[in-house]
Parts: sequence; C-alpha cells; structure tokens
Amino acid sequence: MSSGKHLGKGSAKPVLPEDGLLRLFSMRFCPYAQRAHLVLNAKKVPHHTVYINLTEKPEWLVDVSPLLKVPALQLVEEKDQPSLIESLIIAEYLDEKYAENPLLPKDPLKRAQDKILLERFNGITSGFMKILTQNTGLDEFWTALDIFEQELTKRGTRFFGGDKPGFVDFMIWPWFERLSVIELKLGQEYSFDEKRFPKITQWIALLKEDAVVKSFYATPEHHNEFWRTRKAGNANYDLLA
Amino acid sequence: MSSGKHLGKGSAKPVLPEDGLLRLFSMRFCPYAQRAHLVLNAKKVPHHTVYINLTEKPEWLVDVSPLLKVPALQLVEEKDQPSLIESLIIAEYLDEKYAENPLLPKDPLKRAQDKILLERFNGITSGFMKILTQNTGLDEFWTALDIFEQELTKRGTRFFGGDKPGFVDFMIWPWFERLSVIELKLGQEYSFDEKRFPKITQWIALLKEDAVVKSFYATPEHHNEFWRTRKAGNANYDLLA
Repeated sequence: MSSGKHLGKGSAKPVLPEDGLLRLFSMRFCPYAQRAHLVLNAKKVPHHTVYINLTEKPEWLVDVSPLLKVPALQLVEEKDQPSLIESLIIAEYLDEKYAENPLLPKDPLKRAQDKILLERFNGITSGFMKILTQNTGLDEFWTALDIFEQELTKRGTRFFGGDKPGFVDFMIWPWFERLSVIELKLGQEYSFDEKRFPKITQWIALLKEDAVVKSFYATPEHHNEFWRTRKAGNANYDLLA
Repeated sequence: MSSGKHLGKGSAKPVLPEDGLLRLFSMRFCPYAQRAHLVLNAKKVPHHTVYINLTEKPEWLVDVSPLLKVPALQLVEEKDQPSLIESLIIAEYLDEKYAENPLLPKDPLKRAQDKILLERFNGITSGFMKILTQNTGLDEFWTALDIFEQELTKRGTRFFGGDKPGFVDFMIWPWFERLSVIELKLGQEYSFDEKRFPKITQWIALLKEDAVVKSFYATPEHHNEFWRTRKAGNANYDLLA
C-alpha cells in the first residue's frame, strides 16, 4: 500500500505485497486518475495505490507505464502483468471485469449514447484547461455545459445513470469538484448560473453526498492550493498525504 | 438507397423506404466513414447509405446529425430514431448489436488492449494530416507506425484480430489505403521501408485481398484524385458515383 506520498525521481520502486491485487499508479489531484479511483471504489475492487510525482517522474515508472502516463492500472495476476492506460478504457475494463455495481448500461444503444456524451465532455475538459492556461473566457465553457443540463432534463432522472450515479456521472464528476479552481482564477468574473443550470446544480449537490464521491474527495481549498502551487512551479502533490 | 451521389446544400432530403434498415450518412472518401462501412459489411448488416457533400452540407443534415458530422448512423427502428456519431462508437455499437462475425475480443483485457492500441493510432491519423496540411516530414509518422509493426510481431498473428481481420484491422485500414496520398504529396521524399515494416507490409497485402476491404475499396488513383481536387478547393466527391 502506498503511504499516500508521491514518489518522484530517485525514489526506490515501492515493494508491494504479492497478493495479486490490482495496482493503480495515480496522482492525487489528477481528474483523469480520479476516474479510476471512483470506479474502483464504486465497484469495491481491492487495490493498491502508488502516487506519482508528475513533475519529476520516478525512473521505474517506465516499467509499469511505458508512456509514463497516469492513471495506469497494472494487472499483476495476468500474463506478463500488463498495465492499462487511458482513464475511460480503464473504467470500462473494470466495469466489464467486475460484476458489482454495474455502471454502463447493458443495452448497446444506451452504451453508445453514454460514450457519445463523454466525447462531448471534451468540450468541458478542454474549456477548463483553456481558462486556466490561456486566459480564455467562460462562454465556451458554459455552452459546453448546456449540453449536460439538457441531457439531464431529457433523461428525466437525477443522475445520468438513472436513480443512482453511473458511468457518465463518475467520469465527469472530477471537473465539477474542481469548479473552485476556475473561480479562483477568474475572481469576480466567475459566475455559476443556477438558473441556467438547475439540474446540474442539483446533481452537484447530490453527488457531493454520494458515498463513492466522498471516498475520494478533496475540498475546494485543497484543489485551489494544489493549483496555486502547481502554477507557481512547485506543485504540492502531498497536500493530503 | 442513395445513388452514390453526394447531396449538398439545396438538395431535397432523400426519401428512403420505410423498411427499418439502418441509415448511414457518409462521405465516400472519408476514412472515418469508411470504418462504419467496413463494419457494416463485415457483419453483413443491411443498410442504406446517404452520401453527404461536406463542403456545402445539405440543410436537412441537422435533422439526422445535429453536429453535422459524418459518419452518422441513424437507427430508424429505435424510439425517436436516434443517430450515433463518432466512428469508433458506431463500430463498437454494431459489433455489440449484431452477432455475425464478432470483431472485438470478448475478454475485457484484450478489448481494453485493442482500444489502447487504437488510441495510439491517433499518432498515425494526426501525422497523416500534418504531412498533408502542414508540410511536416515523415519521421513522426514512421515512428508512430513502429508501434503497429511491433504489436503485430508481439501478437504473432497475420492480423491484429488473429487469423482474420478484426476490430483493430478495420479501424486502421482506411489510412493505409491512403498511403498513396502521402506519396503524391511528398514525391521522392516518400519512402515506405519494407525492411523496417515487414509485418505491416505483409498485412497490407493481405488486407487488400480481404473481401470486406474489397467491398469498400478505392484505388490509389482515386484517393489521389480526390485529394488533388479537395486541395484545389473543388473536391470531387462523386468520383466513384
């Protein structure tokens, strides 16, 4: 089990018990890695977590994640102990492999529609980074969010997954947990319009109370502090360790 | 059934028989649309094809593909006659929905590994467009191709799908069918090194003889002529109509 500290350049490769458990290579404040944590927790899959310092990556990372990406999920019980990368692929793998708490619908059409919706979420993730790094405004971001407000209205359910959070909910949540970072960046210019996004407003409140979300949650203050230190060039990875 | 001619601005919306068949909105020379054609043909799914002029899109396209994208697959038998977009999502939907000739492996790990490989294929698709539009060299393109040569070697099979073409094979083939366009663009600078890519060389030759590939094939001359006219600003969509 990792201590929660992020391992960096020069660190010794952690020695994990040979218990066959999955090994997740992660970074505590990475929204993509958070997707993998949420699915592992939602499906109650026992695993080890090893946190990685992404500024100065450990030399041994290449052994478990040849492209040096996180999240990477190593399957130590499989032949050659392969690792999976790409958060959506990891999440779908876990959902297919472990029966507990199915997240994606079984119906091929509904599965496809959820995946198209996640493709469209790229408008949110790219808008998010543009605001933080290129000083773009909020218009594009809110327009991308309209799609999700409309979709919740269309589905007529509290969650994208129905009466409880499903695949789409957990895949998009990490960016909503980080809305404070945009607010920190934009100051008074920031405004989340609850009248424009009534369904999403309620959805955010519900997810904050969800046990799975709570199992891997960081407060706005934590996210803001991480972003502040990252922007200053000395990312405080171990803020929660 | 479409006549094969590409419908553009001002065209009447085609009247298709109410026979419940899938409707594919496509463009004859689009490599992403080709993915959908190959899967439909591999799985012998009867369908109608409507070809779209992408330079001047028909006004009615928004009714079947709200983002005006092709390929779009309309499922007229489903409630509200929804359309699917994104070539990989369409392909996976068809593979899940129709039992004939399964393309993706059933094993969750192998499925995930095939999807990671397709993520990495983005290095080829983006390299391809960079060469054609930004005058970049070939180095990046061949380096991306090394991954696929190595993977075929590692799998030890003639095709990525094993002893016959599978999901990965059909998803990546359209760009190999268009290698001539790079050659046309780069002239003598172009060189496909059969010594560097012996497995891929053999794979290309085998796929050219595959019945599914042949069912939706255009010659190097056709691709070159399409590209030439497209670059000149008067894309000849109906070259094969």
